[in-house]
Amino acid sequence: MEQVKLYDTTLRDGMGGRGMSLSVGEKLKVAQALDALGMQFVEAGFPSSNPKEAELFERLAEVELENATFVAFGMTRRRDRAAAEDEALAVLASSFAAAICLVGKSSPLHVEKVIRVSREENLEMIADSIAFCREQGKRAIFDAEHFFDGYREDSAYALECVAAAAGAGAENVTLCDTNGGSLPSYVAEATAAVVAAVGQTVEIGIHTHDDSGCGVANSLVAVEAGARLVQGCVNGYGERCGNANLASILPALQLKMGFDAVTPEQLASLTPTAHYLDEICNLASDPDRPYVGRNAFAHKAGMHAAGVAADASTFEHLDPAAVGNQRDIVASELAGKATVRSQAEHAGVELDDEAATRAVQRLKEREHRGYHYEAAPASFELLLRREAGTYKPLFRLESFRVVVEKHADGEVTTEATIKVEVDGRRYFQAAEGNGPVNALDKALRTAIAGRYPHLADVELTNYKVRILDEAHGTGAVTRVLLDSADGEREWGTTGVSENIIEASWEALVDSLEYAFQ
Amino acid sequence: MEQVKLYDTTLRDGMGGRGMSLSVGEKLKVAQALDALGMQFVEAGFPSSNPKEAELFERLAEVELENATFVAFGMTRRRDRAAAEDEALAVLASSFAAAICLVGKSSPLHVEKVIRVSREENLEMIADSIAFCREQGKRAIFDAEHFFDGYREDSAYALECVAAAAGAGAENVTLCDTNGGSLPSYVAEATAAVVAAVGQTVEIGIHTHDDSGCGVANSLVAVEAGARLVQGCVNGYGERCGNANLASILPALQLKMGFDAVTPEQLASLTPTAHYLDEICNLASDPDRPYVGRNAFAHKAGMHAAGVAADASTFEHLDPAAVGNQRDIVASELAGKATVRSQAEHAGVELDDEAATRAVQRLKEREHRGYHYEAAPASFELLLRREAGTYKPLFRLESFRVVVEKHADGEVTTEATIKVEVDGRRYFQAAEGNGPVNALDKALRTAIAGRYPHLADVELTNYKVRILDEAHGTGAVTRVLLDSADGEREWGTTGVSENIIEASWEALVDSLEYAFQ
Repeated sequence: MEQVKLYDTTLRDGMGGRGMSLSVGEKLKVAQALDALGMQFVEAGFPSSNPKEAELFERLAEVELENATFVAFGMTRRRDRAAAEDEALAVLASSFAAAICLVGKSSPLHVEKVIRVSREENLEMIADSIAFCREQGKRAIFDAEHFFDGYREDSAYALECVAAAAGAGAENVTLCDTNGGSLPSYVAEATAAVVAAVGQTVEIGIHTHDDSGCGVANSLVAVEAGARLVQGCVNGYGERCGNANLASILPALQLKMGFDAVTPEQLASLTPTAHYLDEICNLASDPDRPYVGRNAFAHKAGMHAAGVAADASTFEHLDPAAVGNQRDIVASELAGKATVRSQAEHAGVELDDEAATRAVQRLKEREHRGYHYEAAPASFELLLRREAGTYKPLFRLESFRVVVEKHADGEVTTEATIKVEVDGRRYFQAAEGNGPVNALDKALRTAIAGRYPHLADVELTNYKVRILDEAHGTGAVTRVLLDSADGEREWGTTGVSENIIEASWEALVDSLEYAFQ
Repeated sequence: MEQVKLYDTTLRDGMGGRGMSLSVGEKLKVAQALDALGMQFVEAGFPSSNPKEAELFERLAEVELENATFVAFGMTRRRDRAAAEDEALAVLASSFAAAICLVGKSSPLHVEKVIRVSREENLEMIADSIAFCREQGKRAIFDAEHFFDGYREDSAYALECVAAAAGAGAENVTLCDTNGGSLPSYVAEATAAVVAAVGQTVEIGIHTHDDSGCGVANSLVAVEAGARLVQGCVNGYGERCGNANLASILPALQLKMGFDAVTPEQLASLTPTAHYLDEICNLASDPDRPYVGRNAFAHKAGMHAAGVAADASTFEHLDPAAVGNQRDIVASELAGKATVRSQAEHAGVELDDEAATRAVQRLKEREHRGYHYEAAPASFELLLRREAGTYKPLFRLESFRVVVEKHADGEVTTEATIKVEVDGRRYFQAAEGNGPVNALDKALRTAIAGRYPHLADVELTNYKVRILDEAHGTGAVTRVLLDSADGEREWGTTGVSENIIEASWEALVDSLEYAFQ
């Protein structure tokens, strides 16, 4: 099978995403995770002299990679000096990274408007800079910025830029859709033209963005047109709408298009790796993400669940296990005993026929009252355990009290007190919080922390409130959804009540109890 | 310009998304928003006899649409009865909707494995059912489920299915990539083949899903191949990874591919409409979404911001205003002031230049903290009045206290006490409620009811809670939206705080004060 190389730019282009900011230690973890996933290139950024970047490159130099080559990123030489006298190129040459990626212009508009040099001078800047990297013993990649705009304006000149880099010794020229505006048919056509023109002398790569919602598709059609390297970010991090999502591109290349990129074992680690990267970046994982999302193989409608049971391919485009994900039959009113039993089995809960009947009944009752277990499988599992008789409560609540006060000076204070019993011993605790649920959470955890040290690992990662039957104003029923994680697992719980504090309490208790099931 | 029709299926296929659940009233709002955006078809679901769906269709029948046609959705007849004796088809025929969309099989695998009829019988089921709809005076659309899988298995049979629907009088046959597994080049090729085979006799549509991250691209390449109707959901709601996102497809069709779909004014309402729909569905809007996301035109990297300043097209693929979005670097003070002044004028608030400047500043500050005035114009008007100096407070708050207790027997009690001053007189009141905000609302009203008899007319009609920055768990910021009415007017107010009680209090006070402005 023919190989397509994957080039992850999370540590450089991905950092342009709003709110993205990683410590040196976190960047090391990202690099190692990308290497373990089988990326051929991991772009590390520009090894500038600022202390943080300097420390990053120092520490990256000590990382032993299994698969990937680190790439240092920079620009072609400045217009007013020779490559050998360009400070930035010197920094790149002296970095430990075996490969250098240089970005340069390929659009006449940008040559003239942004860097303001002649077309000829731009070609020399490209060739000089790549040649300099090669002379310094580095592998060289040229990123043709705004290539698809340039090709539209003046295809001959855009091709000259590509040829200049190739002629100077670049092992790859990557065509960039820098503003993300191109659509697939045009990307396919332009890439095919480049491959026809210079494909014999240099490998072509593709770098796309998702501004048109076509970042993934544009990369895939470019590969069909002959590109053999794809730049992007696992999870599609990046400025504006993000870079092309390598977590969607990789499985398509390997499972649908017949290319070779990583091993099947590496591909099967895609889902956990994508979630781990989100965790390092402190981002909630998008549940609807292709291949790796929590919902990517979730089936809800009764008809679809039945279809999947008859033949998985009816509503699954591939085997979820191939990308490390799993099928998820979502609990809903439509579910019958069969669904409940298959979920119990999946959760390792033994449910006899009678218990399954009771569980279905309980489910229907609760859904009628406003519970919604689709996003709260952990609460559903606890419901199953209660019916199966294998449920273990963490504590017995005696009482709690939450007080919110707004004072004359406008200050708001919140405190919670709680009385609970564990194994016959009574615990009484108070806590302040920035809101009532936060205070209650703190008081409960402090009260039982001594008995359950693992509680310290359980983090509430997401809290949602939905008012049901909103037309009843503040007297309506409230449904709370809570997501939690302990570094290994993630789970969702729920609570429903007219009283938002009580609903939150219920979801909170389920969350903590699930951690110990 | 040639027209492409847009067909939104949020109310049917979109409801398969995990956690999607809308009341009848919310569905009406969705339908009206989609109509205002210029959708040609709004699919309403199956008009079954269950009370909720029956009520929906009853109320939809009274909605006057400007642009769209409502579509009722169902399946081809059952295998064991004639179309005229099929109960489900009868329900469709008797609905008010002028158009019916019937889904049916076009893949031999599904014909044999899932519905277990012969290939010939399936063709008859399609033709009979479409013909029945036409005889009943309905416009008919055929959704060829699993078309792209079927075409891969047996292209001749898949085409026969399409031809059967066309021959029976369907005005459109839509090719569905039901499991979302197809890639753009294949979708383009198969669609072109269908258009070549039957394009003279029937209009072809496309219906894709995002399981491969190519939902948008697949729709666009199908249009290039001759499809002239696109089914999907604004914001890409739906099961698994969602339906194709019409909010990404529409601007590409109209601004990049030269097709005509909606008016330029409707296109310029795309961003607010997409956010409004998320708000109705109680979903956080994805900030990285193409075209409509808060980040879609946000420039962070210094170089990129400079590039945009030199020439917007360097990092913007189109003018954000064309889709109702805006660039996010240089906040245009002037545009802000003009908007604020026109809103003040609309509300009858006189605002001099200085006050307008202050109001813009205040607005920006507050939006930065999470306020969102689009759904809370009454709170915005109060903000303007404060700057204009015409704001009259109802009372001065000394303090309030809310206590929620859960007792050993599981009972939960809630009480609020409040101390306020009106015209120098102090009022002290306590109240119980079924939740903290309800208790606070009652206490406040009882306290000042004697001074403001009109308060008795003010009803809180809707209460919504949204956790912003959900990833901070129970420590995140809460935004409350409150709708109120007094029999003559309706108005919306908002409050934002880390503390949900404080946020609700703020919205509550705004609501009552607005009633007296």
